[in-house]
Amino acid sequence: GFPGVPGRKGEPGESAYVFRSAFSVGLETRVTVPNVPIRFTKIFYNQQNHYDGTTGKFLCNIPGLYYFSYHITVYLKDVKVSLYKNDKALLFTHDQFQDRNVDQASGSVLLYLDKGDQVWLQVYEGENHNGVYADNVHDSTFTGFLLYHNIE
Amino acid sequence: GFPGVPGRKGEPGESAYVFRSAFSVGLETRVTVPNVPIRFTKIFYNQQNHYDGTTGKFLCNIPGLYYFSYHITVYLKDVKVSLYKNDKALLFTHDQFQDRNVDQASGSVLLYLDKGDQVWLQVYEGENHNGVYADNVHDSTFTGFLLYHNIE
Amino acid sequence: GFPGVPGRKGEPGESAYVFRSAFSVGLETRVTVPNVPIRFTKIFYNQQNHYDGTTGKFLCNIPGLYYFSYHITVYLKDVKVSLYKNDKALLFTHDQFQDRNVDQASGSVLLYLDKGDQVWLQVYEGENHNGVYADNVHDSTFTGFLLYHNIE
Ligand SMILES: [Ca+2]
Ligand SMILES: [Ca+2]
Ligand SMILES: [Ca+2]
Repeated sequence: GFPGVPGRKGEPGESAYVFRSAFSVGLETRVTVPNVPIRFTKIFYNQQNHYDGTTGKFLCNIPGLYYFSYHITVYLKDVKVSLYKNDKALLFTHDQFQDRNVDQASGSVLLYLDKGDQVWLQVYEGENHNGVYADNVHDSTFTGFLLYHNIE
Repeated sequence: GFPGVPGRKGEPGESAYVFRSAFSVGLETRVTVPNVPIRFTKIFYNQQNHYDGTTGKFLCNIPGLYYFSYHITVYLKDVKVSLYKNDKALLFTHDQFQDRNVDQASGSVLLYLDKGDQVWLQVYEGENHNGVYADNVHDSTFTGFLLYHNIE
Repeated sequence: GFPGVPGRKGEPGESAYVFRSAFSVGLETRVTVPNVPIRFTKIFYNQQNHYDGTTGKFLCNIPGLYYFSYHITVYLKDVKVSLYKNDKALLFTHDQFQDRNVDQASGSVLLYLDKGDQVWLQVYEGENHNGVYADNVHDSTFTGFLLYHNIE
């Protein structure tokens, strides 16, 4: 008899695009409480909802290497702010304020995260270093994105 | 009869490498005109030519999520600069200058762009906030790149 | 006859994940020697070991487009720092210090690198512009990563 019809075509290979996690958020008003996570509630991007505006924390859903950056408007008081990973301050940014000299302070870092790790920003000393400022024409922002997902 | 020949091999997975868009540019001389797009004409990278040095605007050719960052040398005057997307100021950076205290101000953000969207930097108040400075040993820069192209 | 067996699954898409190169490092103590590469020895990430803490230099192993960023705590002296590529200063960041006004200065850029290219940070004038500061609660950092590997 005749040969059968050809088999079905194979499945496509794995896409590079299933691993995505990114957020970019801003402050709406100046920080008033030090020593707790800063809650950024102006959302520039948060499609995967891995950043939680009610806690101020980013929750890692995809293990891998992440880039984080932040930019702070320093006004009214000095600023001491840290990037925290799971209750440990990893990065320390200090900028002093002087009258009529609004400043900008920023930081960025690459961090490997496991699923469940949390990352946030927090003023790391008390009321005197709480000058993280924002209003509708002064931004203070926090951004993060997955650069390379875990392949091991 | 005999079984048919095996099916064709599946297609390769979607490649990450057809979707690229990035630019990194600097100022050559200080900004003299406020309230118009800042034209960065020192080119560090602009292979796809999606940034236009004659207008100062980045034009989105590939829909997706983009990262933008800028760094401003604050000298001679205060600086108020905004990142614009299609005539709307989305991000506001303010840094005050004082005599003998050159400063640096920076910002970064993730923005989802559709094809045709334009992004640029612009001083958002008048002559008094026009202290965006550059010469051959003082850089003010603007960078952007496609992080994740649209897959929906 | 019977239909043939299904074809083999396609090959994975050209993955973004075989081409990885990233580092993120910090200073442990303030810079004391100008005009030589700054050696950042606090390692946030350096899995591929393309950054060498003994020289302070990043060595390109994978040709492509890289993003570099740095954040400097300006304290005790003014800061003039440059990003170097193979002995040529490409990016210049200047921030002046004044008493009781710690500042933050930062820069970022995209650079195309060939295999063998080296990138580092260096104070570009003498002792008077050496105010790159760090201690255990003041970070100065240097980060780089491969954004798009060479496909040409
Ligand atoms: Ca200032
Ligand atoms: Ca300064
Ligand atoms: Ca300051």
